[in-house]
Amino acid sequence: MKKSLGAQPALFPMPVLMIAAYDENGKVNVMNAAWGTICDMDKIALIIDDEHKTTQNIRKVKAFTVSLADKDHIAEADFFGIASGNKINDKFERTGFHATKSSVVNAPIIDEFPVAMECELAEIVQTNNLFAVIGKIINVSADEKVLDENGKINPLKLNALIFDQFQHGYYLATEKAGQAWNAGKDLMKGK
Amino acid sequence: MKKSLGAQPALFPMPVLMIAAYDENGKVNVMNAAWGTICDMDKIALIIDDEHKTTQNIRKVKAFTVSLADKDHIAEADFFGIASGNKINDKFERTGFHATKSSVVNAPIIDEFPVAMECELAEIVQTNNLFAVIGKIINVSADEKVLDENGKINPLKLNALIFDQFQHGYYLATEKAGQAWNAGKDLMKGK
Repeated sequence: MKKSLGAQPALFPMPVLMIAAYDENGKVNVMNAAWGTICDMDKIALIIDDEHKTTQNIRKVKAFTVSLADKDHIAEADFFGIASGNKINDKFERTGFHATKSSVVNAPIIDEFPVAMECELAEIVQTNNLFAVIGKIINVSADEKVLDENGKINPLKLNALIFDQFQHGYYLATEKAGQAWNAGKDLMKGK
Repeated sequence: MKKSLGAQPALFPMPVLMIAAYDENGKVNVMNAAWGTICDMDKIALIIDDEHKTTQNIRKVKAFTVSLADKDHIAEADFFGIASGNKINDKFERTGFHATKSSVVNAPIIDEFPVAMECELAEIVQTNNLFAVIGKIINVSADEKVLDENGKINPLKLNALIFDQFQHGYYLATEKAGQAWNAGKDLMKGK
């Protein structure tokens, strides 16, 4: 018998997404978001309030990057979630982090995070049940150190932070459990 | 300098969501989806194709559950992703798994998975860039063994699978890295 916990957002794992955009003057702002998902092979949906400085920036500039926060930068990643760009004018500068303009979209790539999706604003979806900023992923930039010899990103090298909405912890994926389209193949054969 | 990898869905971690619904005859079907996110404190957005048996079921029955796949059931969880309910009529039965009807929505809770969000269909969102099934989370049911003494779900007890779209592996969050709204608090004080 399972225990009833009431309505709550019981999805795990959640990512720790670092959404970065320029304002109209070219100033960098970054926010931390755990609610987001891929919604096509080259699209990402971000569930972020319209009031955020970053959302306002994206509406104006129509581009952003989404980086994956990693273990080595947990303090800064968490700070980007605590601090509001509407209230702290030097939010990005305070971390000492650096940004490089993407070569494909008008948005800053944060140098310190290992992987960035460089996105154009595709659409802002607003319905009775959903507010989502949809980005078209034009390119992905990654540090060499997180790549395997096949040129693909290796989660065990990435040390990406994982957010837990149950108790608000950050976790790491440090153990591989299996391979998709393989772990269940015996069941495909029937019995 | 970062390396350009081209457009790809570079979000990590992704969840391993087990979406379950009855068909019009009360038969259980389950599918595996990695693209989904919480979109409000009591809402979930699932990015699943309209052609899936599960999507067809949800359109008819207007309810579903979303369970978190765990390490102990990796073979079955992966099988739910490989097999199509449109092609394999005994998909759910083949796993030997059991389902109990939710007490709050007309949808099956898979007994074997540790946590289930019980949802009513809120809306199907379809735009140029997004197809999403939005559920209103009415209740969450969880096994006692994944709860802490405070009654909250503990990710380290959950053993939830994590999907890696880069190389299609399954991972586990076995290490805690820090606490949100705490790891970055020193930066809030300024320097």
